[in-house]
Amino acid sequence: METIRSTMMPVPLSLNRLLEHAGRQFPQSEVVSRLPDKSLRRHTYSDLYRRTRALAAALRQLGLRKGDRVATLCWNHHAHLECYFGIPAAGGVMHTLNLRLAPDDIGWIAHHAGDRFLVVDDILLPLYRQFATAHRFERVIVFRFGGTPVAGEAATTEAAAGEAAAGKPAAGRAAGAEAPPPFEDYERLLARAPADFEYAAHDENDPVAMCYTSGTTGKPKGVVYSHRSTVLHSLSCALPDYVGLSCADTVMPVTPMFHANSWGIPYAAVMLGAKLVFPGPHLHPEDLLDLMQAEPPTLTLGVPTIWLALIQACEADPGRWRLPAGMRSMVGGAAVPESLIRQFARHGIRIAQGWGMTETSPMGSLFFEKPELRGSLGEDEWFARKALAGIPGPLVEVRIMGEDGPCAWNGRDVGELQVRGPFIAGSYHGEDPDSGKFTGDGWLRTGDVAAIDPQGYIRIADRTKDLIKSGGEWISSVELENAIMAHPAVAEAAVIAVPHPKWLERPLACVVRKPGAALEADELLRFLAPGFARWQLPDAIEFIEAVPRTSTGKFWKAKLRERYAGWEWP
Amino acid sequence: METIRSTMMPVPLSLNRLLEHAGRQFPQSEVVSRLPDKSLRRHTYSDLYRRTRALAAALRQLGLRKGDRVATLCWNHHAHLECYFGIPAAGGVMHTLNLRLAPDDIGWIAHHAGDRFLVVDDILLPLYRQFATAHRFERVIVFRFGGTPVAGEAATTEAAAGEAAAGKPAAGRAAGAEAPPPFEDYERLLARAPADFEYAAHDENDPVAMCYTSGTTGKPKGVVYSHRSTVLHSLSCALPDYVGLSCADTVMPVTPMFHANSWGIPYAAVMLGAKLVFPGPHLHPEDLLDLMQAEPPTLTLGVPTIWLALIQACEADPGRWRLPAGMRSMVGGAAVPESLIRQFARHGIRIAQGWGMTETSPMGSLFFEKPELRGSLGEDEWFARKALAGIPGPLVEVRIMGEDGPCAWNGRDVGELQVRGPFIAGSYHGEDPDSGKFTGDGWLRTGDVAAIDPQGYIRIADRTKDLIKSGGEWISSVELENAIMAHPAVAEAAVIAVPHPKWLERPLACVVRKPGAALEADELLRFLAPGFARWQLPDAIEFIEAVPRTSTGKFWKAKLRERYAGWEWP
Repeated sequence: METIRSTMMPVPLSLNRLLEHAGRQFPQSEVVSRLPDKSLRRHTYSDLYRRTRALAAALRQLGLRKGDRVATLCWNHHAHLECYFGIPAAGGVMHTLNLRLAPDDIGWIAHHAGDRFLVVDDILLPLYRQFATAHRFERVIVFRFGGTPVAGEAATTEAAAGEAAAGKPAAGRAAGAEAPPPFEDYERLLARAPADFEYAAHDENDPVAMCYTSGTTGKPKGVVYSHRSTVLHSLSCALPDYVGLSCADTVMPVTPMFHANSWGIPYAAVMLGAKLVFPGPHLHPEDLLDLMQAEPPTLTLGVPTIWLALIQACEADPGRWRLPAGMRSMVGGAAVPESLIRQFARHGIRIAQGWGMTETSPMGSLFFEKPELRGSLGEDEWFARKALAGIPGPLVEVRIMGEDGPCAWNGRDVGELQVRGPFIAGSYHGEDPDSGKFTGDGWLRTGDVAAIDPQGYIRIADRTKDLIKSGGEWISSVELENAIMAHPAVAEAAVIAVPHPKWLERPLACVVRKPGAALEADELLRFLAPGFARWQLPDAIEFIEAVPRTSTGKFWKAKLRERYAGWEWP
Repeated sequence: METIRSTMMPVPLSLNRLLEHAGRQFPQSEVVSRLPDKSLRRHTYSDLYRRTRALAAALRQLGLRKGDRVATLCWNHHAHLECYFGIPAAGGVMHTLNLRLAPDDIGWIAHHAGDRFLVVDDILLPLYRQFATAHRFERVIVFRFGGTPVAGEAATTEAAAGEAAAGKPAAGRAAGAEAPPPFEDYERLLARAPADFEYAAHDENDPVAMCYTSGTTGKPKGVVYSHRSTVLHSLSCALPDYVGLSCADTVMPVTPMFHANSWGIPYAAVMLGAKLVFPGPHLHPEDLLDLMQAEPPTLTLGVPTIWLALIQACEADPGRWRLPAGMRSMVGGAAVPESLIRQFARHGIRIAQGWGMTETSPMGSLFFEKPELRGSLGEDEWFARKALAGIPGPLVEVRIMGEDGPCAWNGRDVGELQVRGPFIAGSYHGEDPDSGKFTGDGWLRTGDVAAIDPQGYIRIADRTKDLIKSGGEWISSVELENAIMAHPAVAEAAVIAVPHPKWLERPLACVVRKPGAALEADELLRFLAPGFARWQLPDAIEFIEAVPRTSTGKFWKAKLRERYAGWEWP
């Protein structure tokens, strides 16, 4: 019998296709950015399309070659979005630097990635100067976000363009820390870009972007996304049961664009023509609330600590702000306390918890309600279920690996959550593939301990490193934290394992009281008692000023463990 | 500088992944099928998963090899859905035969495709026998949809299983039309399937299914879909602005599963855990309305003629049925008259028109309202816009090719609609790639004449072959038909080009009056006059009994052109 082949066109998946679609189909959609002076700048997708292609043309004129890394050190704004699409359009790889890391670490990461160019906000130049000696960029392109003129840029831009055109290496390209690289002005580059731009030819597996893991558990590791993975993630996360992204949405990404690409949402939003509202550097709760009044979002995204602060600010000053009606909030990056979901529900805001990592592009799973659960759950059950990490996307395979092999999906058996799929990392940039993060049969070891119930919902019990091993039993720090944060006098709480002479480890609760609230350890323990076995309760409660946070706003438990390393149990 | 590669896992796109996701994540979702006796049979996704894998195991035991074609001759029901996933799971290619074609044509197509096995509904065995001599299947698997016992199947099934296990060719496999192939019973095969099934290893470009074009413009041509194209189409069509498919949906595919795979919706619905309601062989308006009362859908799909008949039946017997509140209807396969959209809107039903072809998997574009249009359009403008073919999906590139190259998107310039993308055909099975259907630069020539407006909405002016060339001007038959069908006394209408001694061609309108309605040509022409230039109006109006239809329910204008080939203009 004749063999048969697919008759489908061999068209590669491409980020450029998404940009073309956006520019042609949604020319009137808006991109709004909040500037450092708190004013708003407005662009249309027609501007986005034109400016992004100009950026790509300019980068190529500056000598960008295929696969070259271009770092960004920027807040969330329209020019950063232009980098998301423009750097890959020219064949480059966008590398978002995390401006909340220590300068030495930023320099280390830029050097490890081999970044050639840098796009930096003018207001972040002081930070840049702190790591400029750790890695020498060939060119530094300054986006005048704050409006300050870029000293000496005119001369160097022209000189650089001339050199590139003549095929000569730029001055100082041979590295060495002696002379600082020339500064270019972002807007001037765009204005002078050649008009006849054509996208770089590419395979769908060619890289488009890279992010380093936040490195709270060791050296940061580079994850490199491809055209293929980015398009597949965009399609998957936008599905109705997941983020449910539409051209009618107004999306406010509070999650930084340097944190897992703002969860990949900017790519998906542009693909679908959604309005984008970027908060710029203004992430204080009052600022976000002000922005929500001016440009009411239908969808926001951020880590739980951001929303915790926001709802407290909102409730502390009743009548000053109104949370936009019908807004939905995607919350991830850390476990979402059930109390937070309840608190937002009282304001009519639907919180959907997701689970993911830099390695998973990052949407691994998201909570949504299955129709068969409707009406069958009491209020408490419903909120408990909403605090689960949800259901994986259709392209994400999940399994729970126990000590004796894969666990049943019975909601009880816990083990390491492992995942597999076309937008999940199978290695790290420049690392030995046998790093211990991947199984022999090709799954990513997430380091999260989880169970899956018969309905397919994932419950994250804890990070492997945050579990408390008490005697032969495990205690979940996440469950204790959620219960503590449900107390009305508690602002936030972190529970850590502290070495114990008899039990190996025992839980210590670090609790931040709400301003002016009076709460003592005894009362809190009485509050917790009904929900836990006696041996699961913390042995001590420490009242502290604030929980230390990582660069991405998550609780930094490693810091707390250091602080209490010498703790003596009574 | 170091070269950089994506660190993403090389996981292929796979239909098997969608089945696994459905079976694991949505075990309680339902599949409801209407049987020939009009009773309903219910399955869960848990059943679907188990039965589909059993089918795949059974096919392999019967000797199915990778790439073998397995034809289906079935109505819309759960076992057909099992074939959608089970045949590819075993490594085979599902080929849906169109039961509305002439038996000789079905036989020709089965032979051209090289189909090895056939899955057939018992109630369609009389049809099968009419083409059994044109193509000899090695095995015929009978699904007892109507419940009739399959004569002699027990003996042959056992014999066949024994032979396959022993590696011997089945009796009569060497073809020749002498002995009829043995019949197997579908349920018995499933019941006896080995339990240790593993998916066939595959590349994402391996074929999963094939469909032949309906062949109203020549010999049918085979389109072969791949794992990749099917997964990408499923993700794309399910996006919120397009079909917007969710696990909360109840989908009733009236579009036959042998017509462009029921528009690919069964794949997407299963991927997302939606409830499916299959009408079986009962497609009369009254039957569909009955089924809508019993299992109210949130989403239906079908060609315009189905909905035209349905709404007329519904309005002819007020109070007997209620169209399900909030239901949305995807309508495609032919131009949707604006009057139909208005009529459904009066019942609160939202009709979304799509455009596509067998060659486009098939969703090329779908109508949705952009937020900037809200409130800015008067009612007439709004309905006129809803009658457009909509906006292409993010992975579908479109262009309008005029005589002098690509047309501007100004809403006026018309040319041939050409499309490109990863789920669009670039060739036909067993045909010379240079068939005239593809451009030199790799686009599909759709044969549709269209314009695109500055908002990106596609307006299909006509099929190339249905345009009327009058003097040096083109007249759109679709626009005339839509205007005629807006007359309250008209049930349906088709406008064709008839040769004319002076003008080359002139329009002739073939009109079907509603039962009991009195309408004369003069009145109809007066009704049309305000919307058209004088020379665009039909030169004659013929009142006929019914517009002939193709096997897929579309107006068959070629038949009308034959009928009026000898027409003499007055």
